[in-house]
Formats: sequence, structure tokens, C-alpha cells
Amino acid sequence: MFILVNLKAYDCDPVAIATAAAAVGDDADVRVAVAPQTADIARVAETGVETWAQHVDPVGHGSHTGSTLADSVVTAGAQGTLLNHSERRLRLADIDAGIRATERAGLDTIVCANDPKQIGAVTALSPDMVAVEPPELIGTGTPVSHADPEVVREAVSAADAVDSSIPVLCGAGISSGEDVTAAGELGSEGVLLASGVAKADDPRAALADLVTGL
Amino acid sequence: MFILVNLKAYDCDPVAIATAAAAVGDDADVRVAVAPQTADIARVAETGVETWAQHVDPVGHGSHTGSTLADSVVTAGAQGTLLNHSERRLRLADIDAGIRATERAGLDTIVCANDPKQIGAVTALSPDMVAVEPPELIGTGTPVSHADPEVVREAVSAADAVDSSIPVLCGAGISSGEDVTAAGELGSEGVLLASGVAKADDPRAALADLVTGL
Amino acid sequence: MFILVNLKAYDCDPVAIATAAAAVGDDADVRVAVAPQTADIARVAETGVETWAQHVDPVGHGSHTGSTLADSVVTAGAQGTLLNHSERRLRLADIDAGIRATERAGLDTIVCANDPKQIGAVTALSPDMVAVEPPELIGTGTPVSHADPEVVREAVSAADAVDSSIPVLCGAGISSGEDVTAAGELGSEGVLLASGVAKADDPRAALADLVTGL
Amino acid sequence: MFILVNLKAYDCDPVAIATAAAAVGDDADVRVAVAPQTADIARVAETGVETWAQHVDPVGHGSHTGSTLADSVVTAGAQGTLLNHSERRLRLADIDAGIRATERAGLDTIVCANDPKQIGAVTALSPDMVAVEPPELIGTGTPVSHADPEVVREAVSAADAVDSSIPVLCGAGISSGEDVTAAGELGSEGVLLASGVAKADDPRAALADLVTGL
Repeated sequence: MFILVNLKAYDCDPVAIATAAAAVGDDADVRVAVAPQTADIARVAETGVETWAQHVDPVGHGSHTGSTLADSVVTAGAQGTLLNHSERRLRLADIDAGIRATERAGLDTIVCANDPKQIGAVTALSPDMVAVEPPELIGTGTPVSHADPEVVREAVSAADAVDSSIPVLCGAGISSGEDVTAAGELGSEGVLLASGVAKADDPRAALADLVTGL
Repeated sequence: MFILVNLKAYDCDPVAIATAAAAVGDDADVRVAVAPQTADIARVAETGVETWAQHVDPVGHGSHTGSTLADSVVTAGAQGTLLNHSERRLRLADIDAGIRATERAGLDTIVCANDPKQIGAVTALSPDMVAVEPPELIGTGTPVSHADPEVVREAVSAADAVDSSIPVLCGAGISSGEDVTAAGELGSEGVLLASGVAKADDPRAALADLVTGL
Repeated sequence: MFILVNLKAYDCDPVAIATAAAAVGDDADVRVAVAPQTADIARVAETGVETWAQHVDPVGHGSHTGSTLADSVVTAGAQGTLLNHSERRLRLADIDAGIRATERAGLDTIVCANDPKQIGAVTALSPDMVAVEPPELIGTGTPVSHADPEVVREAVSAADAVDSSIPVLCGAGISSGEDVTAAGELGSEGVLLASGVAKADDPRAALADLVTGL
Repeated sequence: MFILVNLKAYDCDPVAIATAAAAVGDDADVRVAVAPQTADIARVAETGVETWAQHVDPVGHGSHTGSTLADSVVTAGAQGTLLNHSERRLRLADIDAGIRATERAGLDTIVCANDPKQIGAVTALSPDMVAVEPPELIGTGTPVSHADPEVVREAVSAADAVDSSIPVLCGAGISSGEDVTAAGELGSEGVLLASGVAKADDPRAALADLVTGL
């Protein structure tokens, strides 16, 4: 299982969470990554944790003021990026162009989508991974793996029908090791989570709990 | 073959073109439709031609000032709508929601996309038809069926791989009956065109030429 | 006072409301206009009521599939258009370009904004009128003139400081003649309203109530 | 005069340019700042040069995946941010909310606009500075101060008419000390430039030339 902790724009200490994530991942031999604000990527990457961007723009070098260039996050230490998160939905053509931009820059991608149909669609664009996150469950604390297990199973089927080589992750409401295990049993090869760690009183304990069943 | 004439925001006479399209389609027993400005749908539909919208918004009834509601174009006489034209690219989630909104309203959909990969993606969303239009050829007068026949063949393959029941159309640069015939030989079940008719000195003659080979 | 009834994408009978609005306006000698869906402009205008669009795009004739062209709504019978409604917020450059497009097409504009600072900003773009609508009050039934009279007074001051020739309207939560009168006492030269008429059991009675104090 | 070097998404060495900018600014006693990619802010700020962001999003802490939070660029070392650059045009309501977000975070703002009317509009939103940049001259090498001096004079007048306390900068095509001096003579209190430095064979020499007349 791959655990990606999305720090969004939360009021948290990205370096402390990154340090904890690196330690917990090493101890449990689980792949754990952290996606901080773009401006924090360099100092998060310095902790040694696998570091992801939350978004990059579908552009290459050029006159693109205010865009986040894939190459710039690679230079800062990122290994991958989310694209099309439900809080940053993109036009279809820009998801496609974004995947091409990340390929040129050597950045992995997880393309998010709301439901199985959209998972089928984004799988057709050949990203590295896809992630299903029902928007109505994001931030609720009610895990998708419990509230709507069918959406995970169907997302896995929808992706498999288009390209079975692309791993499917899931997210929304995940905060415990039990949720992670349940996600895996539904066919998910990883989870995205955010507030469960970023807003936890003790992020390290929250991370340790996540990997207990793995 | 299905021929859809997109009037965009061109300075043309939509009723005259619609009247010509209805006559030419009837004479040749070819399905010909016209997609005018939203405000012109009612008077275009009154000519008896099959009428399409150029875009509807992914919403139902409610507080959506400035949106084009699928039900409102149905009431005005539209039978279908384009979605995600390269001049009106949509977010993936909105293409999906737009298809659902048109289903509820009883409106057919053609979802446009730039290339075969994106055609695979939009096919996964189960629209009624899909259309591949390389943006760089739109409005050039160089037909996609001649300039880039592989993009049409590959778009047909990409759609078939996802859902072989969904017809693939093509567009960009098409203006003659030869272009339409060539498109059909590449596996396309219809064409989108615009300036070739809307900007023609004699739209009826342009339309008559389009159907000569059918 | 100018009363503009915005039908949004509500499930209502635009022709019945337009007919009632024309009759009530004539009886009371009050300027009353109706802004229906774009596809309904022609049949609303045929009732004789002053007809407005809810939005037009900042473009002229050309390759703009899915845009609403100012000229097309003029041809259908519209006299003016809203721009930048809080449900259809525009980029600053597009508000400016939209005002220029409407000027060329001979269409009046009301540019909406959320608060007095933004009213000052849009007044600087020289539209025909501006309208302040606090988004948090829209659709509540709590009239801005009662809930937040200062926002109306300050919007009038902000507009006057930039260009005192441009009338200021207000909207949000307005549903009664008392609300309209109160708006006028705060310096507003008109009101925008929507659900108070469009969702009323008896739209004509709702309209008649609106003009009682004028 | 304030000289802001916008590195856009150019393929350049941000640290080398920042080091040169700091040295040239110190030598000439001129305020020179550099606006790199968000991911590069921290290492640019470490050179000691005044560092700006190219854009921040109109949000505070919270669930805003993929947004650039004003606080995060402050933490990384930024002192200010551009908003509404012509390559990243924003909705009016978001310019306003962006200015409020930067105020809370302690970040200065330069709000860009295309022409004098829009300069009047953004001045009404009370940013720290405004900058007029005719989009058609950006990247041309033809300086706005030479090609269209009236647009600079009129922008200064438009801003003054709304709030004379807000400095007006200009940009587009500026690459020499002569251009900077000319801009100052037109009433501009600073310049934005980009390719003239970022794409120069010798950025330090280009910077040194810019300050020669000051």
C-alpha cells in the first residue's frame, strides 16, 4: 500500500509531519509520501520523505506567470504530483497536457476523479496512478472504504477495463489503519488522506496507526 | 453519415442556413443538423432542421444565473448538444455532469476531444457520440481526413477499445464532399464543420457539395 | 425604481412571468424587466416586457463555440444583460471586454459585485449600471436593505466616488414592496430579485406587491 | 524606481539571477526584486534579494489542495506577490479576496491590469501597487514607454482619480535603462520586466544596464 498525506493549505507544520512520515514509513517498511504546499516542497524533501506536489500546471518552460512548472517542483525535490484533485478540478485537455508535462519532467502522477466513470476516463489518459475520491466524503472522517465500498470496487473495475496496469488508489474520510486495510481489501493499492494526519494532535501517532495492519 | 454544421458566433444568417440544411438533407436523405447560438435555437428549430446547442452547463434547475440549462434548449427545440468543444473546453467533472444533465433533459450529446487519448477518456463517460477535432486544424480549410488521417483512425480505435457502441465523428478543416467521404472511409460516422458552410458565399451550394458522395 | 426579475435556471414559466411583469409594470408605471434563460429570450421578448440576458460572453463574431454573443441576444429581443453575477463571476479583463462587446451590440449592462469595494472597481469600467448583491443574502428571503443597509449606502458612495453618473442597484433577499421602498431610501435606483417572483405561487401578485410603494 | 524581475516559467537559473539582482540593486541603491517559481522562492530568498511570488490564491488555511497559500510564500521568504498578471487573469471577486488574503499574511501586492480603465478598477480594491501591462507588448522587446506612452500616462491618471496614494508601475517590452528612465518620466514608480533579464545571455549585465539612469 502507498500512503499519500496531502497537507492541502492546512495550518500545520509540514517539516514535522514529513519527518514523522519518513520515520513511520521506514519503521513499517511502507511507502509513505507527503504533499505539502509548493513553497514548502524543498524543506519537506530535505527530511528524506518521498515528496509530492499537490498540482502542477499543463505547461512547459515559457511565459506562464503564476503557473507551477513540473520542472520546478522536480528541482525542489518532488517525485510526483496530484492532478485534478476535487479541490482543483481541471479541464480534460489540461489533465492530458499535465500528464505529458510531468512525463517530460520525470514526475509521477496520480490523477484524481470523483467516481468510477471518471476513473475510467482518466485511466485512458495513461497517468501513473489514479485515485477515486467521492467529494461528498472528503474531510468527513467517514471512510470511503466503509461508507461506499462499491465505489472503490467499481473504480478498480473501471480502471481495469481500460488499462489494468494502472494502480487505483482511494481517498476521502480515511484516518485509521482499519480504513487502510479495508481499502486494500477492496482492490485499492494505496490511499490519499489529509486531515486525519494534518489536523491530528499527534501526527506521528496518527501515521503509526495508519500502517498497523500492513 | 451525420453532418453537423456549427455556426459558432459567426456573422451569418442562421435561419437561411437552417432552411438550406433541411432542404439539402431531405433531398439527399442525409442527416444534417445545425447548431446555432443559444438565442437562435427556437427560430432555427422552426425551419424543421435538426437543431443542436453548442454547449449546455452541467446543472439542473436552480440558482445558476448565466448558465444554459439543458431543459431550456430542449424547450426551444434542440435535439442535442455539443460538449467540450475545443473553443469551450470543460473540466472533466463538468463533462460528466453535463452528460448526466442532458440525459435527464432528453438531449443527445456529442463530446468533443483533441486527440485519440482524450477520445478514449470521453468515451468512458458514455455520451451518445464523440468527435475528434485536432485544434490546430480547426478553421484552416485543411481537412483532418487528409492532413492527419491517422488521428481519425486512432480515435476510432481508442473509442472502440473503451465502448464500441459509441459512434465517432471527426472535424476540423472539412469543407467538401470529398472530405466527408474520406472521413467515412477512416471509420468516422459523421463530421462536424463550421466555416466551410457558415462563411460560404452560398451556404446551400456548400451543403449540397458536402453530401454529393453519400 | 427599476425592477429586474432574474429567472436564473428556475423551473418556472418564463412567458407567464413576463406577461405578468409587463402588465404590472404598465399598470403601476414602473420599469420592470425580466431576464430569462438565453434560449427563452425571444419568446419572453414577444410578450412586450423589457427583456434582459443573464450573461453574454466578452467576444465579437468569430470562432467562439458555446459562447453567448451580445448580438445574438439583441436579435432575439434583449435590451440589456447582467454581467458578473455572483453565480457567474468573471475575470476582471472579461468584465471589461464584455462591457465593450455590449456597447458595440447596443446592449445595456448591469455589472454585479459583492460589496462596496468591488462596486467601486466595476464602476471604473463604465457600465450602464452597477448592482451590489452580498452573496450570503442571495436567495435567503432576508432583504439586503434590512439585513445590511450599510452595504447599500456604502456601495452608492463607492460608485459615486468613481463616477456619480452610474446608477446603483441592489439585490439579495428582496421580495416585497417594503424591501423595494427601503432600497430606494438607501440610494438604490433599482433592485434585482429572483426567487421572490420566480418561485412565488402567484408571480403576478408577487410583482404587484413589489411596486405598491412606488 | 522599483524594478521587479518576473522569471515566469522560463528556463533560467533563478539563484544566479537573484544573486546578480541583489548585487546590482545594492551597488546602485535601487530597489530590485525577483519573482521566481513558487517552488524556488526559498532558495531565491536565501540570496538576500527581495523576493516576490508570481501569484497566490484567494484563500486562507483550509481544504484547498493545489492552491498557493499566501502564508506559505511568506514562510518561504516572499515579501510580496503579483496578482492578476495577464498570463494569470483572475476573476474580480478573487482579486479582491486575494488582496485580503495577502493583507492577513503580511504580503505586499502588485495588481496587474491591461489598460487604464482596468487600472482604475483594481486601484479601487486598495492593493499596495498597481501595474499596467498592455498584453500585446509583453515579450516583444518593444517597450510600453516607447510604443504606447499614453497608456502609461492614462493609467497613472486613472489610478490617481480613484486613489492617489497607490503607486503605478508599468511593464511590457522593457529591457534597457533608457526604457526604465522613460517609464519614470511618464509617472511610473517602477517597472515589471521578464525576458529582458531572464533570457539575457548575461543577466547581471542586463540588470546593470537597467539601473544606469537611476
